[in-house]
Amino acid sequence: MNDQAGQKAPHARKVGVLGGGQLGRMLGLAGIPLGCSFVFLDPADDACAGAAGDVLQAGFADEAAARELAALVDVATFDFENVPESTARALQEICPLYPAPDALGAGQDRVPENELLTGLGIQVPPYHKVSTRTDLLEGLEILGYPAVLKTRRLGYDGKGQAVLRDPEDRERAWQKLGDAELILESFVPFDAECSLVAVRGLDGDTRFWPLTRNVHSNGILKLSLPGVFDEALQMKAAEKVGAMLEHFDYTGVLTVEFFLVGSELLVNEFAPRVHNSGHWTIDGSDCSQFENHVRAITGLPLGETNQVQYSLMFNWIGEMPDRQQAMAIEGLHWHDYGKSPRPGRKIGHATLTAPSMEKLETRAFRLAEIAGGEFPALLKTIFD
Amino acid sequence: MNDQAGQKAPHARKVGVLGGGQLGRMLGLAGIPLGCSFVFLDPADDACAGAAGDVLQAGFADEAAARELAALVDVATFDFENVPESTARALQEICPLYPAPDALGAGQDRVPENELLTGLGIQVPPYHKVSTRTDLLEGLEILGYPAVLKTRRLGYDGKGQAVLRDPEDRERAWQKLGDAELILESFVPFDAECSLVAVRGLDGDTRFWPLTRNVHSNGILKLSLPGVFDEALQMKAAEKVGAMLEHFDYTGVLTVEFFLVGSELLVNEFAPRVHNSGHWTIDGSDCSQFENHVRAITGLPLGETNQVQYSLMFNWIGEMPDRQQAMAIEGLHWHDYGKSPRPGRKIGHATLTAPSMEKLETRAFRLAEIAGGEFPALLKTIFD
Repeated sequence: MNDQAGQKAPHARKVGVLGGGQLGRMLGLAGIPLGCSFVFLDPADDACAGAAGDVLQAGFADEAAARELAALVDVATFDFENVPESTARALQEICPLYPAPDALGAGQDRVPENELLTGLGIQVPPYHKVSTRTDLLEGLEILGYPAVLKTRRLGYDGKGQAVLRDPEDRERAWQKLGDAELILESFVPFDAECSLVAVRGLDGDTRFWPLTRNVHSNGILKLSLPGVFDEALQMKAAEKVGAMLEHFDYTGVLTVEFFLVGSELLVNEFAPRVHNSGHWTIDGSDCSQFENHVRAITGLPLGETNQVQYSLMFNWIGEMPDRQQAMAIEGLHWHDYGKSPRPGRKIGHATLTAPSMEKLETRAFRLAEIAGGEFPALLKTIFD
Repeated sequence: MNDQAGQKAPHARKVGVLGGGQLGRMLGLAGIPLGCSFVFLDPADDACAGAAGDVLQAGFADEAAARELAALVDVATFDFENVPESTARALQEICPLYPAPDALGAGQDRVPENELLTGLGIQVPPYHKVSTRTDLLEGLEILGYPAVLKTRRLGYDGKGQAVLRDPEDRERAWQKLGDAELILESFVPFDAECSLVAVRGLDGDTRFWPLTRNVHSNGILKLSLPGVFDEALQMKAAEKVGAMLEHFDYTGVLTVEFFLVGSELLVNEFAPRVHNSGHWTIDGSDCSQFENHVRAITGLPLGETNQVQYSLMFNWIGEMPDRQQAMAIEGLHWHDYGKSPRPGRKIGHATLTAPSMEKLETRAFRLAEIAGGEFPALLKTIFD
């Protein structure tokens, strides 16, 4: 499936990135010590990845700009999965692009995504395609309540979703989303949400970080805690993600989000890139998701994905807590993305590390108190 | 002694750095996630710190350029200790500079440096000031052979030194160094060389990384291995370095190199900055020397200096081993400074991390074999 064999650049040093947000920024910061330099393509005039490389300011649909980027670099990747597939293909005519557009395309529409996963024997929540009001009624008949109506494309961080708890929610949900192609999914009564971040090298070498427990609020990730699931569940998740990596002959980091129900893992969605739930790997793992993604796409051997310290990530949405107070906590690793604060915007994160789970918990409650808002309550859901 | 109290900038975000070499580059990479941005002053048109900030190209004696830098930033520091004190003072008129020029000046001339240390009750190797041939003869009379003749200023990485093993070496050493002001030191028959990297915050909070064993060859650092000395020696070193930090009312990272003779520690020299022997802290410590230096000078609380993994640093001088082969070793962290290779030039380093000393040793000998040259033999001197 990967048709780029002839173009592979095993000693690539100049890396192009479609998207210049915080993921690009952290890819750059991780890749510079490896001897790489970075060029980011981004429509913003203040793309925060600019701290770690040059920025080519252009829209994601601008194929000429994508070609210009491709001519400047040895290999390309993306920090943003909703790049038009046509842009990816234009770029790929000139330089290798990892992960390959097949994987990018497969994750952009929830219906073929679910069909693909089902075909690989990977369980997903029961779903029904919805284009019309009639489809919606039909789907609710089959799946029952509660259910979640989602746009098939361009949904992220809880955007493009509506929960239907009873028939009264139907019309409101249809008014909100009915203009787009939709998918109705059973609302999974999960015990926990978790994700597996994996990386596969150009040579097929595949590694998995520890399965990470995630806590969302209003569809946005707030907390990530790795290292709390047993080996059997880790193996089960790795088997599923391994099958996906093989299917795509994948190169780079792939993240799969799961619902844990009893001891079963249902795939919620996947992202063909480094992921917010893997940010703890910068400070808590021997080799971070960012470094390993750069290693993978430049043909370098992969680094170790083992956890070296107990870790917990706090996501800063819209505002950051007081830096002076937060950084006084032992084991606090601060990550400011250099973005101007705006409600709902991811502007930074912090990872706490500690030599024991007890110390991690103590430090976490201290940070939650400083951060305020929902954090103390959300934290209680994982340390109960 | 610190007269900058009124100017302190506890929430500084823009950092100026005198010097734009690898130390500046690593300061920038560590400081960007804290929310800082960097401007480096450097005479080179390809200063490698440029990957982590802007570069103002100017000579270190250019006081106007130093003032220009000062006007651009909230706080300044340096990655190069041989900046003229006049440049530091010019800059300091406009923005705070840490560490303060007193400490910078004290480390620039070996004679007042030794006098200062002796005054603080810190032992140094026996020495004699040398300006003339007569002084040299007098010094050799007192100290005996072997002895080391060194320039008082601008010596680093073994430059500006000559070892005198017997009277026949005298004339050659004088011819080599006699034009400068000199110091003659007893050659210390040390059991090991080691260094202590310390950091002191604006509020006086002081922390020490583990005492690190160093192996030099031709005066240049080749290997650094932390975590091999006992707590008593760590305390002894911390007491000496703590006294120096207090004396200077120091802010930032200070590194002191020692000769270990039996259980005694003699100060060889100190550097008022992050140091090559502390590079392992990026990958092996909870908070690196680079991040903690930025935290200190910007008035942030200090991070933890504990070692989280067994670590060993290899220094790449003039050339780097094959990246593909080296990076295939487990726990290998690669640091390419982006400098063009030149004999004797520090162009990169690698830190090996491991969960046990046994694994570290195995990995180290594999890397030494790939790196070749003196590495296998030097490594044997520490794992014998």
